[in-house]
Amino acid sequence: MNSTIELLLSHRSIRKFTDQKIPRELFETLIRAGQSAATSNHVQAYTIIHVVNPENRRKLAELAGGQGYVADCSDFLVFCADMKRSTEAAERAGAEVVLGMTEQLLVASIDTALVAQNVAIAAESEGLGLCYIGGIRNNPAEVSALLRLPDHVYPAFGMCLGYPDQQPEVKPRLPLASVLKEDYYQDEQDATLVAEFDDTMRQYYLERTAGNKDTNWSQQLKPLFTSKLRPHMKDFLKGKGFKMK
Amino acid sequence: MNSTIELLLSHRSIRKFTDQKIPRELFETLIRAGQSAATSNHVQAYTIIHVVNPENRRKLAELAGGQGYVADCSDFLVFCADMKRSTEAAERAGAEVVLGMTEQLLVASIDTALVAQNVAIAAESEGLGLCYIGGIRNNPAEVSALLRLPDHVYPAFGMCLGYPDQQPEVKPRLPLASVLKEDYYQDEQDATLVAEFDDTMRQYYLERTAGNKDTNWSQQLKPLFTSKLRPHMKDFLKGKGFKMK
Repeated sequence: MNSTIELLLSHRSIRKFTDQKIPRELFETLIRAGQSAATSNHVQAYTIIHVVNPENRRKLAELAGGQGYVADCSDFLVFCADMKRSTEAAERAGAEVVLGMTEQLLVASIDTALVAQNVAIAAESEGLGLCYIGGIRNNPAEVSALLRLPDHVYPAFGMCLGYPDQQPEVKPRLPLASVLKEDYYQDEQDATLVAEFDDTMRQYYLERTAGNKDTNWSQQLKPLFTSKLRPHMKDFLKGKGFKMK
Repeated sequence: MNSTIELLLSHRSIRKFTDQKIPRELFETLIRAGQSAATSNHVQAYTIIHVVNPENRRKLAELAGGQGYVADCSDFLVFCADMKRSTEAAERAGAEVVLGMTEQLLVASIDTALVAQNVAIAAESEGLGLCYIGGIRNNPAEVSALLRLPDHVYPAFGMCLGYPDQQPEVKPRLPLASVLKEDYYQDEQDATLVAEFDDTMRQYYLERTAGNKDTNWSQQLKPLFTSKLRPHMKDFLKGKGFKMK
């Protein structure tokens, strides 16, 4: 197994960082590595906001649900799905642009995720740690206002980057047979494989909490799906021009 | 610059592969590397269909718009955004699950993209080449029927994997200043930066085609946005239970 694959397999989220700052040259290299990711039809449908202003960092930490590391990490990025730049370019070239298609929401969201994952891997390859911050979708309108995001741009997720001040264990993943299927979607075995994974996760939580956290994967998911998950997202996206036509 | 970052920066899509097959052990390692990507709330909202059946590979090549490498590459994967496994697990644990939220479409699409990008990088680190196949969204209903995808699972994109039989150049990316903004979304400079990138891309196309392809980035985007891009996606997703509530 080569060192890049070893790096990928050793990923875990870092939420505690030292005070050391990422040098600007390295920071730009991480972004360029991100840009190298594949992009749908070369659209490059993303913009990255590098939030430097400390007051805005504190506000974003609150808006993301009280995640202090958003303020404390060396560099905080907001990865935005962006249909503005490319469609305006096409318009300037003479296109009569149709916006608001559901497909464009997918293209921009997926493009943005591919870029972010490259940034994440580049960062880890340099000994940095990171965590994704989906919590910025808790209050996307407030986040958008703070970052002055125009229409056809939405904040997909954030990312904290910095030098790790913790060494958490790697968190287990579902059994391979659960996520990889041959030729057809077959789920006859899924309940069994999930039960197996529930056992794995129960052990993981017990060991990390000296026996205090007695739960498993399925239990952890319950609150996430019982409530309407971020029910504001539909109206928020529509208001930003992602009309899901 | 370390070798992983060099690898990321050297990415280009491969669409011509040798007959050499990827060994099964390596293939599984790539998938495990994929699984190690970050995942929203540990949901792991994806399923990968490994299409082995040659007839189905040929059909998928057609459905993706006549992309022969879908049939010819060593291994073809369809990355599916999957809200079924996790919500059924939560249901078995006693949750009254709410499905069809717009946020769930985002979570699953982003989770799936992060996994895929890890698979892509793991593959490239082993000397393999790949290309993403967004074209499976040309005919998502037919693709879903062929792969027997149930409700709450949609085919986000495909990926061809194999040993490269071509060495294309790295395709330029937008200027850093165009995609990276400090504190606020500022686009005063965007038209200028895009014009600069249009020149870069024009040179790139001219050089690769002995002067025959005289176009640029903005021109290339025109047909993509003038028509309604994959206008079936909204109804297709709703039919699959991604109701965008």
